[in-house]
Amino acid sequence: MAKQLRIGVLGAGRIGKIHAENIAYLISQAKLAGIADVKLTPEMETWAKGLGAQNVSGDPMEIIRDPAIEAIIICSSTDTHADLTIAAAEAGKHVFCEKPIDLTVSKVQAALGAVKKAGVKLQVGFNRRFDHNFRKIRELTLAGDIGEVQMVKITSRDPAPPPPAYAAVSGGIFMDMMIHDFDMARFQAGSEITEVYAAGAVLIDPEIGTAGDVDTAMVTLKFASGAIGSIDNSRKAVYGYDQRVEVFGSKGAAAAENDLPSTVRLSTEAGILHEKPLHFFLQRYKDAFADEMAAFVEAVLEDKPAPVSGEDGLADMYAALAAGKSLKEKRPVTIEEIRSGN
Amino acid sequence: MAKQLRIGVLGAGRIGKIHAENIAYLISQAKLAGIADVKLTPEMETWAKGLGAQNVSGDPMEIIRDPAIEAIIICSSTDTHADLTIAAAEAGKHVFCEKPIDLTVSKVQAALGAVKKAGVKLQVGFNRRFDHNFRKIRELTLAGDIGEVQMVKITSRDPAPPPPAYAAVSGGIFMDMMIHDFDMARFQAGSEITEVYAAGAVLIDPEIGTAGDVDTAMVTLKFASGAIGSIDNSRKAVYGYDQRVEVFGSKGAAAAENDLPSTVRLSTEAGILHEKPLHFFLQRYKDAFADEMAAFVEAVLEDKPAPVSGEDGLADMYAALAAGKSLKEKRPVTIEEIRSGN
Amino acid sequence: MAKQLRIGVLGAGRIGKIHAENIAYLISQAKLAGIADVKLTPEMETWAKGLGAQNVSGDPMEIIRDPAIEAIIICSSTDTHADLTIAAAEAGKHVFCEKPIDLTVSKVQAALGAVKKAGVKLQVGFNRRFDHNFRKIRELTLAGDIGEVQMVKITSRDPAPPPPAYAAVSGGIFMDMMIHDFDMARFQAGSEITEVYAAGAVLIDPEIGTAGDVDTAMVTLKFASGAIGSIDNSRKAVYGYDQRVEVFGSKGAAAAENDLPSTVRLSTEAGILHEKPLHFFLQRYKDAFADEMAAFVEAVLEDKPAPVSGEDGLADMYAALAAGKSLKEKRPVTIEEIRSGN
Amino acid sequence: MAKQLRIGVLGAGRIGKIHAENIAYLISQAKLAGIADVKLTPEMETWAKGLGAQNVSGDPMEIIRDPAIEAIIICSSTDTHADLTIAAAEAGKHVFCEKPIDLTVSKVQAALGAVKKAGVKLQVGFNRRFDHNFRKIRELTLAGDIGEVQMVKITSRDPAPPPPAYAAVSGGIFMDMMIHDFDMARFQAGSEITEVYAAGAVLIDPEIGTAGDVDTAMVTLKFASGAIGSIDNSRKAVYGYDQRVEVFGSKGAAAAENDLPSTVRLSTEAGILHEKPLHFFLQRYKDAFADEMAAFVEAVLEDKPAPVSGEDGLADMYAALAAGKSLKEKRPVTIEEIRSGN
Repeated sequence: MAKQLRIGVLGAGRIGKIHAENIAYLISQAKLAGIADVKLTPEMETWAKGLGAQNVSGDPMEIIRDPAIEAIIICSSTDTHADLTIAAAEAGKHVFCEKPIDLTVSKVQAALGAVKKAGVKLQVGFNRRFDHNFRKIRELTLAGDIGEVQMVKITSRDPAPPPPAYAAVSGGIFMDMMIHDFDMARFQAGSEITEVYAAGAVLIDPEIGTAGDVDTAMVTLKFASGAIGSIDNSRKAVYGYDQRVEVFGSKGAAAAENDLPSTVRLSTEAGILHEKPLHFFLQRYKDAFADEMAAFVEAVLEDKPAPVSGEDGLADMYAALAAGKSLKEKRPVTIEEIRSGN
Repeated sequence: MAKQLRIGVLGAGRIGKIHAENIAYLISQAKLAGIADVKLTPEMETWAKGLGAQNVSGDPMEIIRDPAIEAIIICSSTDTHADLTIAAAEAGKHVFCEKPIDLTVSKVQAALGAVKKAGVKLQVGFNRRFDHNFRKIRELTLAGDIGEVQMVKITSRDPAPPPPAYAAVSGGIFMDMMIHDFDMARFQAGSEITEVYAAGAVLIDPEIGTAGDVDTAMVTLKFASGAIGSIDNSRKAVYGYDQRVEVFGSKGAAAAENDLPSTVRLSTEAGILHEKPLHFFLQRYKDAFADEMAAFVEAVLEDKPAPVSGEDGLADMYAALAAGKSLKEKRPVTIEEIRSGN
Repeated sequence: MAKQLRIGVLGAGRIGKIHAENIAYLISQAKLAGIADVKLTPEMETWAKGLGAQNVSGDPMEIIRDPAIEAIIICSSTDTHADLTIAAAEAGKHVFCEKPIDLTVSKVQAALGAVKKAGVKLQVGFNRRFDHNFRKIRELTLAGDIGEVQMVKITSRDPAPPPPAYAAVSGGIFMDMMIHDFDMARFQAGSEITEVYAAGAVLIDPEIGTAGDVDTAMVTLKFASGAIGSIDNSRKAVYGYDQRVEVFGSKGAAAAENDLPSTVRLSTEAGILHEKPLHFFLQRYKDAFADEMAAFVEAVLEDKPAPVSGEDGLADMYAALAAGKSLKEKRPVTIEEIRSGN
Repeated sequence: MAKQLRIGVLGAGRIGKIHAENIAYLISQAKLAGIADVKLTPEMETWAKGLGAQNVSGDPMEIIRDPAIEAIIICSSTDTHADLTIAAAEAGKHVFCEKPIDLTVSKVQAALGAVKKAGVKLQVGFNRRFDHNFRKIRELTLAGDIGEVQMVKITSRDPAPPPPAYAAVSGGIFMDMMIHDFDMARFQAGSEITEVYAAGAVLIDPEIGTAGDVDTAMVTLKFASGAIGSIDNSRKAVYGYDQRVEVFGSKGAAAAENDLPSTVRLSTEAGILHEKPLHFFLQRYKDAFADEMAAFVEAVLEDKPAPVSGEDGLADMYAALAAGKSLKEKRPVTIEEIRSGN
């Protein structure tokens, strides 16, 4: 049997569980070697053992220090991401870190510095790049079917808003929600964002406005390549999770529609009815979570660049900060202005 | 200005009006020269004059005899089709006759004989061959995109059943409804039907059964080319007029979906809703009626074969008769058996 | 027979011909009474007579002055629109004027003043409001199916760019192309545009840039209602005329896809292929041209407000001017700034 | 932790591997306890141990006899299905048997008798009933959205024909391929098939004809409920695995289209292109295989009827035999005729 990458997972919440089970069951080149959760329960322990993890702990550092473990998946709370990334890098472990690495640029930069110094791989959890639909668009672009990319349009709407209080800790709509779309925009354009203009409104929940955030946003992008783009976000699409991308170029356009639970159409006196899109990101991106992990394992084992780097995470963050500033100051803001201001 | 074909229309009912207006307004190479209706009303007369018809009469023979008229469109009641076709042919006029030419084979043969003897053109009103969807499928087949045709599948369902009494005079579901689909099947297969097996049921209206007919039917076809096919008919699709065709071959398959009033999809908590198909044949085949007439005019002016011949009409009728016999005798029936029995 | 509106058409070019034929053939409540073209040819005269026009002239004023004519359709060159509107209004004739009324605000205002003073109807030729797809979306919104409108997104791409020299006389991409989309945005939002931000690029033809215009544009809109919107334009979509609209609201979303020539899908080893969208605006909006004219006739005969008013035309123009200024000054521009600056 | 059903798998070929991995990884209420393959290799052994199987053997009877094992999954070669079913039943084990139980009615009846006598569960591997699309149609029917079922139409085409020699051992197109569709037809109609008429042709590979089989077939069905149906099969659809179902009833119709690898549409000068359907049954029915196994586990643990019974398997077989006889004798054949003849 080929070499298996021995992996430790930090954090056994919703997303940590998904990664751990994907590693244990679906990725033949990886082995789940350890799991830590600071709030470890007996149920978690049974579950972790059942997945074959030999090192199960309430202390993430025990996993990081375990010499049998070669790579660390960080799925703990956001405020621990940067420190754990640094600790893992200093221990010589490759790192897969859920997004965001941190909400402050300086901590992200510190984490990236530690990774660089240690010479380990770092992949950030922008799973949507691995979605079957969006990846297919990118493949068509790379194959030349679309020609020169001229426009990238992204629609990204959640089925229901988070509690208004969430806005304060999450960094707001640009930092917790649209950051995925900034990453998608850069991925699809194959070019860096240079300028952002953000229009926003509070149309769904006034408390979101009271908390200083918007719940509806339309952002215009300029790319280094000369292409232009747009992203629209809503915190509440009553018909479910709306995730669409369109890339338009000199030779054509590729557009991804939502995934539906079935292809069935029901024709009645009322019209022709299809099912709503898959409602929640865990269903919608189920395969993408497995595929990003497989890509991380392959990058480590074959010593290739991680497909979503720490620099990607930082660039996405700059775009989110530029959008926030643009909304506040009612003008387009360049990425350079954000980058140099930090 | 190029030569215009001078046309007389017999019968100013629903379909006669459509043909007359198409000739007057949409077909630049034709001129509406006369209109007759045995129940001519002052309203009809005003309408006919408004269309530019110079000869407006209560007697079809006046139109047929009019030396200024070169071609006759027969839209009167079915029982007059054969006689008027013969009269027009004997007067040296080209004929476009609504389907069916007659419900008895001998009268159809008599009409075809008169047409042949007179050396005039005869086109039968199987308008669906001119539908944008079904014509496109045939074009793809002729272009070789489908390869050798192996299967032809036709779905043809009406929005609502006719009065049960209609079955008696119409000839029943195979003769008044499925005959269009037999014609479509022969058109799409590019081959003659050789054998028919019919299954039928009374599922919509028991009175249809009492009248000796079925309202739901599934027919299997064999073609001279070796291909096989199926047609399903229902007298009542609550979601509207359902008209679909699929041709499957060695290199691929082409399928036509229904036309919808708009492309709009409405996404709500209830699902994703499209509009129902166009409800009625006059809307669904609006352009096809104009296109079949334009094709008739072109065939006459350029002395080309009519695109749907009298022999086509007869072949379609044999298939309908075979289906009726198959249903009654619960066995497959060959076209040869029908043809030689008449 | 009911009263028919007697109409004169000025300008027998591409669009004038369409309107004249629609009036003559498709709108039973109207009668084509006159046609003028400053470059009248014998062919035009034959054609006009064939449509039943009694007054055919090389001088538009002859039609305007004709006492038998009650309404004027202005399809002559753009620089004559305002003057002919004024002349027709002063003659007491109702006016349907192709867009734009003029490229300068002052002339548009003068025309609107004359119309108001004369108490006649004025409809501007924003035909897309009558398109079956876009009208259906608006109907759904008005029926409450979408709830409060939160976003309006419009994609509008031409199959091929005009000659670069055209930019100079047309007023550029915002004034000659996106003005249709500003009108659509206002129509779908049911609210006035208050602010515009425009991003643009020259990605198709450098000469368009040399002429001072852009060929690719992405515009963000704010509406008085609080909704936000976007419009993207490209002068060249190689796959054909791309005309889509999406309205998103508190209860759902409605989206219109392009019209295709047929519903046929061809499945082969290469994939599943549908036809390209209808290529050209005359095909795509064929029925919309007839329907806008029918609506104008109805507004006059029944003394109802014209469905697209002169004020609509002016508001659309302000949005186009704001977009031009935004692009030049790289900042969002309010409509108020444009309105008060004129 | 809840009780887990301890399962042994017989046969570690393509389908056995899928079931074993689904049991080990995806079905939390089951445990993979044993695996046998008569051609056991060291690689299989490593794989089986990796899945947690404690009893790995070259002898199926060792698994059947293992007292730690409660249920048996039979994935060995077809000629062993009936004997292993009988052995497992006699050992008091519940049985999931891949289709067909056998190619002869008497052996199937013997297996069903043994199962009945032992009072164990038997589920037959008609996985398509668990497909997300086809299950959704059935749910709509059961919810009353379709009304009374009047027609069931099934299209089922393979991407490539099997070797002609396969026809001899497989029982031919009706027994090895269309049997899935007979099962689907009975499932969707919610009624037993009473009569079958089969048309068939050799259009793909003459050697299939030489082997006494057809490669293209169109079958008409009558159901006890009065509904009618059709199934078409082709051994070779160049565009991939074509699996569609349509149910038509008094209140509407539900139709399932193929699953595609992505929702992406590529618009270019050549048209609008979607990807081909998933090419192979293992991809197309990946989730259905897991779901049928989960349903079996649930039926055993909760002592509910197995969702696809041995009687279902027998009824499907009668339909296949009737189709074969119909093709040979060129007439409709009743199920009663087949049933009483055996």
